[in-house]
Amino acid sequence: MSKVSPVKGTRDFYPEQMAIRNWILDGWKASSIRNGFLEYDGPIFEHLQLFTQKSGEGIASELFSFTDRGDRAMAIRPEMTPTLARMVNQQINALPRPIKWFSMPRCCRAEKPQKGRLREFFQWNVDIIGPESVLADAECIFTAVDYLRSVGLKPDDIQCKLSSRKMLALLLEDQGFSEDELEPLYVLLDKRPKLSDAAFSELLEKTVPDAAKREKMMAIQALKSVDEIDELATGDAAKESVAELRELFNFLDSMGIGQYCTFDISIVRGLAYYTGPVFEIHDMKGSLRAVCGGGRYDNLLAGLGGQKVTGTGFGMGDVVLEILLTERGLLDVKTQNMDFFIIDADKERFEDVLKLTFQLRSRGYSASFSYKRAAIGKQFKQATTQNARFSIIIEPDFPENSNINIKNLADGSQHQYFLEEFLADPTIAMN
Amino acid sequence: MSKVSPVKGTRDFYPEQMAIRNWILDGWKASSIRNGFLEYDGPIFEHLQLFTQKSGEGIASELFSFTDRGDRAMAIRPEMTPTLARMVNQQINALPRPIKWFSMPRCCRAEKPQKGRLREFFQWNVDIIGPESVLADAECIFTAVDYLRSVGLKPDDIQCKLSSRKMLALLLEDQGFSEDELEPLYVLLDKRPKLSDAAFSELLEKTVPDAAKREKMMAIQALKSVDEIDELATGDAAKESVAELRELFNFLDSMGIGQYCTFDISIVRGLAYYTGPVFEIHDMKGSLRAVCGGGRYDNLLAGLGGQKVTGTGFGMGDVVLEILLTERGLLDVKTQNMDFFIIDADKERFEDVLKLTFQLRSRGYSASFSYKRAAIGKQFKQATTQNARFSIIIEPDFPENSNINIKNLADGSQHQYFLEEFLADPTIAMN
Repeated sequence: MSKVSPVKGTRDFYPEQMAIRNWILDGWKASSIRNGFLEYDGPIFEHLQLFTQKSGEGIASELFSFTDRGDRAMAIRPEMTPTLARMVNQQINALPRPIKWFSMPRCCRAEKPQKGRLREFFQWNVDIIGPESVLADAECIFTAVDYLRSVGLKPDDIQCKLSSRKMLALLLEDQGFSEDELEPLYVLLDKRPKLSDAAFSELLEKTVPDAAKREKMMAIQALKSVDEIDELATGDAAKESVAELRELFNFLDSMGIGQYCTFDISIVRGLAYYTGPVFEIHDMKGSLRAVCGGGRYDNLLAGLGGQKVTGTGFGMGDVVLEILLTERGLLDVKTQNMDFFIIDADKERFEDVLKLTFQLRSRGYSASFSYKRAAIGKQFKQATTQNARFSIIIEPDFPENSNINIKNLADGSQHQYFLEEFLADPTIAMN
Repeated sequence: MSKVSPVKGTRDFYPEQMAIRNWILDGWKASSIRNGFLEYDGPIFEHLQLFTQKSGEGIASELFSFTDRGDRAMAIRPEMTPTLARMVNQQINALPRPIKWFSMPRCCRAEKPQKGRLREFFQWNVDIIGPESVLADAECIFTAVDYLRSVGLKPDDIQCKLSSRKMLALLLEDQGFSEDELEPLYVLLDKRPKLSDAAFSELLEKTVPDAAKREKMMAIQALKSVDEIDELATGDAAKESVAELRELFNFLDSMGIGQYCTFDISIVRGLAYYTGPVFEIHDMKGSLRAVCGGGRYDNLLAGLGGQKVTGTGFGMGDVVLEILLTERGLLDVKTQNMDFFIIDADKERFEDVLKLTFQLRSRGYSASFSYKRAAIGKQFKQATTQNARFSIIIEPDFPENSNINIKNLADGSQHQYFLEEFLADPTIAMN
């Protein structure tokens, strides 16, 4: 029979790659938990309608969709938010508020594989549903930064660029933009960093045909600080939205991550459902896609058949993150760690090796041995490959001589113990 | 917009269910690691051909299959073994032997949901590839039993029922069965427990039309011990296969799990690829499907285009396991655990609550607070709901009085610390 190849844009996680994936996901999880989020998950496939209802039929071409035996249309999830909204809507009256949830779903998109974008990936999702205060936005941003900081990224490596859709909308409406004009403008502004200036100008002329309005919009996009915006803002609502953004920055300061956060009016996010603060975390040295993006959504749950409850959250994918951490030399992952590696000094002692190995495993210690009867040196080499902390040698005269020889492979120190004494409490050998 | 319902036969993992799933998968992982297995994973979908090549076109109806944009046929994985075989075949000359790998894949099958069988599930896969010794079979069985024992299941709760396909084949061939007749017979014997006696007899007559051979086969199926088989076995090969099975039982004894293991000639497994020892772990008190099943496969890798390398392994699904552990009252899972819950005795102190919370989180402790300014009693209740170990009260006269009050919520003991003293080393309050 012929060999079948793996699918392009997917990944095989051999133990070495799996250790990296686990290291990333364990870090996401630890940050989520210390920040008070509860883990949830949904199925990997949903009724197709759940995705098209939120994002329009256009999304169908980006989905892996199929029918079940009953001919119902299904799709593998391309993102977590529709499932989150469905699950929250189903239980909205039973769930204690605020709903602080995280998930690390595997998602699939039917797109052309390229750097930083695969057809299958993992995405850390963190959401707070219920509170209207920007404290919730700040807590989500803190959680993302808390993780990135914990793996060694400094403020000159990454910056969380923040703005507010509500504020931008009010500023643009002050300048004569109608609500209908905003959504296509957001999509275009979101794409801007990937476009040449000429291409952007051309698309902008199509999106905003009125030259005077275009100029006003570009003047707003040129503002560099919240103070400049405050000067420009006229209406009460606009003033209030600026005050809200200031409050968000104050929270981020008192949380101790002010240095990681910058105001950036060009951040708008492409998705239609954002209504308040929006943010992206960017690599400051390279040209990677955003590591993380999110914001507040006031109407998403109601839009999927639920009550009007606000929420805020972000997604962080593993693919760009892994590239960034690799480039910075911050991946520090071991494939295997073993407490004990048990060695026979004579192949006649192999049965004793096995017994001791399984006694240690039964007591909860990780223990290993060589399947092949080989010279002691080769067995030691295997112990090192498996990152064993200690080797244990069973001597040829065991059990007449019931001592075992335990070596600390980090510092080379050796001690002898009676087997029974060691087995009664293996930690005596582990200091 | 209308509410979209979840897909039947899939599960929503709200935090409470997610905690159970994590508890199960964390246990699988811990047992795998202490037994020296390395984790791997593959993509959730593969080329459809990978699955049909191993199991025949018939399997296609049990798969969720779809096409990608290039019109290539894909399917969501219904099991892990084809991916394992593909990955091992791709790197067979580079991988250090023995290959001792585990995985905990999410798998999907297009079947009718029923008790213990869903359309989406997690399956613990443990495999050793390379060694021909039944030591590898024993090590896999030990790993499964080691996990089940670690969650509290005793030998009268579960038994690993063991036989050998090789041995059964040789016994049947001694009695005049041809090799071609064996595979349909295995499929039927595997189904026997789910069939009435009448239905089994009827199907058996179709599968083995010769009445004399049927009787011989049933006589073999009635044998209760390895000794009885040894008496019946005539040829050298058959004798050898019996000796191998004895060796396997000897290994299981010296590993300390003999009490969990029984010879049972009715265990044959339904899948075509098994060639040696086969086993299933069964609940002894109930009527559940097998908790776990596996065995040795000599030809699987070659059958998928690789070299002839033998392997042995098992799969354990989460669905039957969770039912069993729930029935036995062995699920012991908390949804959330928190180090500190910080409370303001006066809402004017909320900013101090926030500061302390985020300082603790920044130091790696899990810490939480109430989003709503509420009476102290209500905040304490929230601390208890979140299984906080300690509450910290910020008094109304903070920071003039810079003491904080830390209460151990398990035993009610309280201590006061200067804030700075506590922050310098929070563990002083945690004993």
